[in-house]
Amino acid sequence: MRLRLRPVDTSFYELFTKSAQHLVLGAELLAEMLSDSADRADVAERMRAAEHAADETTHEIVKKVNSTFVTPFDREDIYALGSGLDDVMDMMDEAVDLILLYEVTFLPPELSEQVSVLQRCAELTAEAMPRLQSMKELEDYWIEINRLENTGDKVHRKMLANLFSGEYKTIDVLKLKDVEESLEGAIDAFEKVANIVEQIAVKES
Amino acid sequence: MRLRLRPVDTSFYELFTKSAQHLVLGAELLAEMLSDSADRADVAERMRAAEHAADETTHEIVKKVNSTFVTPFDREDIYALGSGLDDVMDMMDEAVDLILLYEVTFLPPELSEQVSVLQRCAELTAEAMPRLQSMKELEDYWIEINRLENTGDKVHRKMLANLFSGEYKTIDVLKLKDVEESLEGAIDAFEKVANIVEQIAVKES
Amino acid sequence: MRLRLRPVDTSFYELFTKSAQHLVLGAELLAEMLSDSADRADVAERMRAAEHAADETTHEIVKKVNSTFVTPFDREDIYALGSGLDDVMDMMDEAVDLILLYEVTFLPPELSEQVSVLQRCAELTAEAMPRLQSMKELEDYWIEINRLENTGDKVHRKMLANLFSGEYKTIDVLKLKDVEESLEGAIDAFEKVANIVEQIAVKES
Repeated sequence: MRLRLRPVDTSFYELFTKSAQHLVLGAELLAEMLSDSADRADVAERMRAAEHAADETTHEIVKKVNSTFVTPFDREDIYALGSGLDDVMDMMDEAVDLILLYEVTFLPPELSEQVSVLQRCAELTAEAMPRLQSMKELEDYWIEINRLENTGDKVHRKMLANLFSGEYKTIDVLKLKDVEESLEGAIDAFEKVANIVEQIAVKES
Repeated sequence: MRLRLRPVDTSFYELFTKSAQHLVLGAELLAEMLSDSADRADVAERMRAAEHAADETTHEIVKKVNSTFVTPFDREDIYALGSGLDDVMDMMDEAVDLILLYEVTFLPPELSEQVSVLQRCAELTAEAMPRLQSMKELEDYWIEINRLENTGDKVHRKMLANLFSGEYKTIDVLKLKDVEESLEGAIDAFEKVANIVEQIAVKES
Repeated sequence: MRLRLRPVDTSFYELFTKSAQHLVLGAELLAEMLSDSADRADVAERMRAAEHAADETTHEIVKKVNSTFVTPFDREDIYALGSGLDDVMDMMDEAVDLILLYEVTFLPPELSEQVSVLQRCAELTAEAMPRLQSMKELEDYWIEINRLENTGDKVHRKMLANLFSGEYKTIDVLKLKDVEESLEGAIDAFEKVANIVEQIAVKES
């Protein structure tokens, strides 16, 4: 363990936790967007607000790392984790936006499966962030995220095979492929966050 | 302010300025490409030359950072800024290329709106680069780029909604979506450059 | 030359070489996938195994860099090279996967040209990795990769022009464009690896 010359600012952990909590809300809004009765314009507007709030938290992290003398772990890892969390939000926001803009009428069940994966990833990430302070019990988190990413990958492949089975009109293939790729991108972004956490934990151990 | 043990090489600022000036030319060529009377093959060839010139400036920056003992700001920020500027050029070059290769016949007005945004971004960036030396009056630059990116985002969403309104043949949706995504990518790349400049300015202040 | 306080661990070079050898296998499997008589499901399964093996080598590199006191070159360059090699594999794996999932029936000759470029890139990269130890005769490698990337770029543009010539059904344009973009992405990823090697060599010289 390294000797600390002055007390480390604990609010980094709070900011990462806040950032991950925005993702929990984002994933919930995504789920709401997929329901048949959704007021899509309204959900998209709330998603936009959530995305702005997430942006602000990211800015707080960047500002804090630039103005703090002793950071709890390497500066570049703090940047990477902050922007990694932000990337997830951007992908979820994009998915909501595309469903609205493309006026997607039929939403295949695979999309709901992906959003369930995203909701689980968001909860696990929000639960793990406070544990960065003790660096304890993080391994279960990143193993589970990697498992969820594998599930998402299987769903993604099933979705692509269905899309190109000849059942869909080409314009709908184009639309649904874009929506699905945003969701898959969000899952990949969660995995990237877990990889960053793993790397931080390995360095600190 | 940090104490400098030897005079800092000023040519970094000149190289960044040169790099941004290539982007001004690139944005002009893009605008030319969109005009009805354009000799597309000729414009694309000049764009290719501009992109090569930009590549060379990027290589000069990388070579200089690797051979300079005292750099005006962190090495990784110099890399990030150099490659960030280069990314803009690549996206603009791609847009020109796709218009040529896809033989796009109808160019919706949104594309011209995006190119106007790009031209303004390029001018502002080229004007801001020399101010990196004094680190003064940079805030207006990055605020304005962020505002322009918001404008570009609104145009992008309008363009997508139009493309998927049922008015276009699917093959044309495919073509125009690719062109539009290159333009949007170039605007995003300008925003990324502005974010890097902001980060450098915050560190130095 | 820098003074070394303790003998440098040579197994980094071995791990990079191993990583590049996975790419040689990956490129061979891609070539096999394109042949008319291929058992696609079987080739895709072997590709998946190769991709997993490559992942493991990447993890070994990351683990080693995190647990080694004196690394042969900068830690961030080791990360960049390790993940750069891994990115190539991901793109080749994606290409194989898409051919399987999309049930692509007609494979235009440009795809085989791209795979030949990839096979040559993989061989050159695998031959170059052991030379990182002496830092000698690396220049030919990165020059040749850059030349191959130019060839790939020409093939890519020819492919896009053909795809949008009106000869193909839109659904097939969509499929083949995705496959082609994975191949082009793999070639670009090889170029990025060569750029990282160049940067390492410049720093060490």
